[in-house]
Amino acid sequence: MNMDMLHRISETLLARRKADPETSYTAQLMAKGPDAILKKIGEETAELIMAGKEGNRLHVVWESTDVLYHTMVLLAFYGLSIEDVLQEMRRREGVSGIDEKKSRKS
Amino acid sequence: MNMDMLHRISETLLARRKADPETSYTAQLMAKGPDAILKKIGEETAELIMAGKEGNRLHVVWESTDVLYHTMVLLAFYGLSIEDVLQEMRRREGVSGIDEKKSRKS
Amino acid sequence: MNMDMLHRISETLLARRKADPETSYTAQLMAKGPDAILKKIGEETAELIMAGKEGNRLHVVWESTDVLYHTMVLLAFYGLSIEDVLQEMRRREGVSGIDEKKSRKS
Amino acid sequence: MNMDMLHRISETLLARRKADPETSYTAQLMAKGPDAILKKIGEETAELIMAGKEGNRLHVVWESTDVLYHTMVLLAFYGLSIEDVLQEMRRREGVSGIDEKKSRKS
Repeated sequence: MNMDMLHRISETLLARRKADPETSYTAQLMAKGPDAILKKIGEETAELIMAGKEGNRLHVVWESTDVLYHTMVLLAFYGLSIEDVLQEMRRREGVSGIDEKKSRKS
Repeated sequence: MNMDMLHRISETLLARRKADPETSYTAQLMAKGPDAILKKIGEETAELIMAGKEGNRLHVVWESTDVLYHTMVLLAFYGLSIEDVLQEMRRREGVSGIDEKKSRKS
Repeated sequence: MNMDMLHRISETLLARRKADPETSYTAQLMAKGPDAILKKIGEETAELIMAGKEGNRLHVVWESTDVLYHTMVLLAFYGLSIEDVLQEMRRREGVSGIDEKKSRKS
Repeated sequence: MNMDMLHRISETLLARRKADPETSYTAQLMAKGPDAILKKIGEETAELIMAGKEGNRLHVVWESTDVLYHTMVLLAFYGLSIEDVLQEMRRREGVSGIDEKKSRKS
């Protein structure tokens, strides 16, 4: 059920690419282009690091949500969806466990 | 189905908190504590920013997967799971839209 | 001469800590506290990473300046100055070369 | 005097670009190219954010030094030096203040 939600948000974000920047925060962010989205990801990650350092569980959930959401905005900007990420995660699981993903890099 | 996968990985990560650090990359990372996990999140975000700047869609998927995975490791460190993030995302949708709601209705 | 400039800016930033937030961008940032400064550092670092990825030398200089400036704002927030950083750098040079600084961490 | 040190380190880094990667940590990092340097900057910034959140002054100095040093490595990779950053900072001071000028005159 929640999964459906992630897919639905991804679909909405993909549609949002052509939306009038006046209509929403996200349409405005996407209209500004990748640099603005990436700057926002940097900012949200800084907040996640602070929440994680603080050890405040509520803040960790909030900031993780912000990072995931803005990552999905970036994916949508490039015509990608959360499904592409889930498939990559499943692929890593399939190979030798998500835990062994480092093999990709070597 | 993929959603089941995210939940399954979250469950595995929660279990891994008490695992022998020798057994896997992730158990080792969690044994090192929050600073090591947050440092890794900083590093993976830097790679996501590079991929997003480059505009390489494959790299964007890879690095988004890395950021999501390590965010789930942080969540698990604090006894949280991806479900907590999905519930927060659903809550935002419910209240005033994670910015999407209006447009979906219009 | 430029060095004098770094010290002068550090002195100004230290004085700025008690300044009226209305008077300047920096006084306002410092009045908001460490979280706002660190969020800004995260954002500026994202921009430096983009500039470095792009390989645009002018942007690399601009963003490096932004990162250095906001690092000095953070230092000032904690009553520190660029001189403390320069002394640490000299100390590392003195021990076995700045290049061997990793020894500190091991 | 410290300033001379920053310039000297910049000169050393510029020379190091062609050094044998076997000879030092920095020569090795530069040989790997901009992605490796930028990833390191992301990691060091994460550590600076943690130190700043923690409010540990000693850690703030250490991590600020790491960020400044790796920024200088990036500058050197592109044939730039700390002097380019100092000139940009002076230029901003000259134009309308790196935000400081007004207060210094008042």
